[in-house]
Amino acid sequence: MDNNSVPNTNSSPAVVVGSIAFDNIHTPTDKAPMLLGGSASYAAFASSYFAPTRIIGTVGKDFGAEYINRFSARKIDLEGLQHDKSGKTFFWEGRYGDNFSTCTTLDIQLNVFERFKPHLPPSYQGTPFVILGNIQPDLQLHVLDQLKEKAFVAADTRDLWIENAREELLELLKRLDMLVLNDEEALMLTGQSNLIKAGEELLESGPKMVVIKKGQHGSVLFHPEGLFAFPAYPVTAVKDPTGAGDSYLGGLVGHLAAMNRTDLTTLKHAIAYGTATASLTVEAFGPSNLEKASREIIDERYNALLALSQIETDPETVLV
Amino acid sequence: MDNNSVPNTNSSPAVVVGSIAFDNIHTPTDKAPMLLGGSASYAAFASSYFAPTRIIGTVGKDFGAEYINRFSARKIDLEGLQHDKSGKTFFWEGRYGDNFSTCTTLDIQLNVFERFKPHLPPSYQGTPFVILGNIQPDLQLHVLDQLKEKAFVAADTRDLWIENAREELLELLKRLDMLVLNDEEALMLTGQSNLIKAGEELLESGPKMVVIKKGQHGSVLFHPEGLFAFPAYPVTAVKDPTGAGDSYLGGLVGHLAAMNRTDLTTLKHAIAYGTATASLTVEAFGPSNLEKASREIIDERYNALLALSQIETDPETVLV
Repeated sequence: MDNNSVPNTNSSPAVVVGSIAFDNIHTPTDKAPMLLGGSASYAAFASSYFAPTRIIGTVGKDFGAEYINRFSARKIDLEGLQHDKSGKTFFWEGRYGDNFSTCTTLDIQLNVFERFKPHLPPSYQGTPFVILGNIQPDLQLHVLDQLKEKAFVAADTRDLWIENAREELLELLKRLDMLVLNDEEALMLTGQSNLIKAGEELLESGPKMVVIKKGQHGSVLFHPEGLFAFPAYPVTAVKDPTGAGDSYLGGLVGHLAAMNRTDLTTLKHAIAYGTATASLTVEAFGPSNLEKASREIIDERYNALLALSQIETDPETVLV
Repeated sequence: MDNNSVPNTNSSPAVVVGSIAFDNIHTPTDKAPMLLGGSASYAAFASSYFAPTRIIGTVGKDFGAEYINRFSARKIDLEGLQHDKSGKTFFWEGRYGDNFSTCTTLDIQLNVFERFKPHLPPSYQGTPFVILGNIQPDLQLHVLDQLKEKAFVAADTRDLWIENAREELLELLKRLDMLVLNDEEALMLTGQSNLIKAGEELLESGPKMVVIKKGQHGSVLFHPEGLFAFPAYPVTAVKDPTGAGDSYLGGLVGHLAAMNRTDLTTLKHAIAYGTATASLTVEAFGPSNLEKASREIIDERYNALLALSQIETDPETVLV
């Protein structure tokens, strides 16, 4: 087995649904055009290091073989990819402010994404791990309606849907095993000002568990058995944070699929893997650093994260 | 041994130097006058749950027996307390903004603190653990000049000294085992915009180790053997954050003194104890919640922090 293949042949498969896009990205010091982007792209690349990964999304006539091949190179199953020749691929242009603390959309062209209706081929309908990347909640719900078997369902969302599709989003929450969102979105969705209270309130609103992402400050899992807080990987040179959250989700659920388990201990390890995977994404423009990673590189960061967050058991140290 | 006494009679002592003050505090929803405050007060109360604690500071003619007795009640050694009858005790009045994200000084009267020169009685000069609470760096240096034995020295500082006493502060750094400061101060002192880079740079500037406090996001230890990141205690009702950093420092160094060890594993536990101790302080105005705590209450929070940050060893889970 080479480093880039799926590591565990006994792994369950995972299916990723979301956007596939071309991104023009401006950072405080640099810019890059026509990057492969979208929530499904990042999440699928991330998941592919852990589990056989299937992708559902739509691309346009400008999405040539050179892009398709990047998914194939990661052995991502493309049966669910819709190739809509009637228009161009979803396009987004954005500019990050100082320290990446803000992001302004400069241009957005939905193109074929405007007509996107996710369709699960029969071969996908029994997938036991489902990653609903950030897209409209009604499309995320439409995916769930097509599942024929009980699955572990994790979904991301964002401010746009909290503001403009709140009802559908609240409906979605009731059908989730895991909601993943960032700190500002958690406060916005609940109206709370305290993140712990926000997480607890979200846990009451439907999902079996909630993960709040805090960027450089790591993430927190709200689980019926208790909280789990985990730091970020100590990245010193962020190049482009686009897709970090999607990569986190893909790595996290990818590990659950690889283990075919969702108990709390496995979830903690999965959060460490998601964190490790996301740290690779932010160190380059677009998904390039993630795509050229290996399971070995991810494992190195995972081990580094455990070293910087865990306390060694030391028999000489008196524990209470 | 009752819950409030020093838990470990084989513990090394710790000496705390800093300010002792009366605080008038306004929060977004409440206010309280004439609270016992100052960096030395909070740090000494915190340390006293772990190690025999000595205090050095100055108080004025308005600092009556009812305040002295609060230190005595925690068995804090008061030989180093200067009772300056020529004036009143240091007074500070401040107002916290929404979510405690800002703090504005409304009034400050140095009073006897203006003439304060810390003096170590002979019985303090061999104290093996020294806590330099937030005061002018030249006073912190003056304490170090009086030490007769090698000691583990930890110091806090703040923006005021970074701006107005930078040279003395940089001199102090070279003589520290541990520098503790908050995230904004670490960025200000180094001119960095990335916290990891700031911590690494501070580690090169003199202190054997650096702890950066991030409020609700926990703290990070920069140590020659590696990083250690630890979350905050999940407090849902902050009442008054005054003294949280001082309580953290007192609890942290208090545990080191109690163990009489400063190896990395002990440091990690000490950070957990500092975090637990600080969480008690913020839940009430002034130090009252900290003063009426017990080692048992601190240990409960310490154990809760380990539960929410550590991954159980599970033989069924495949580790890489």
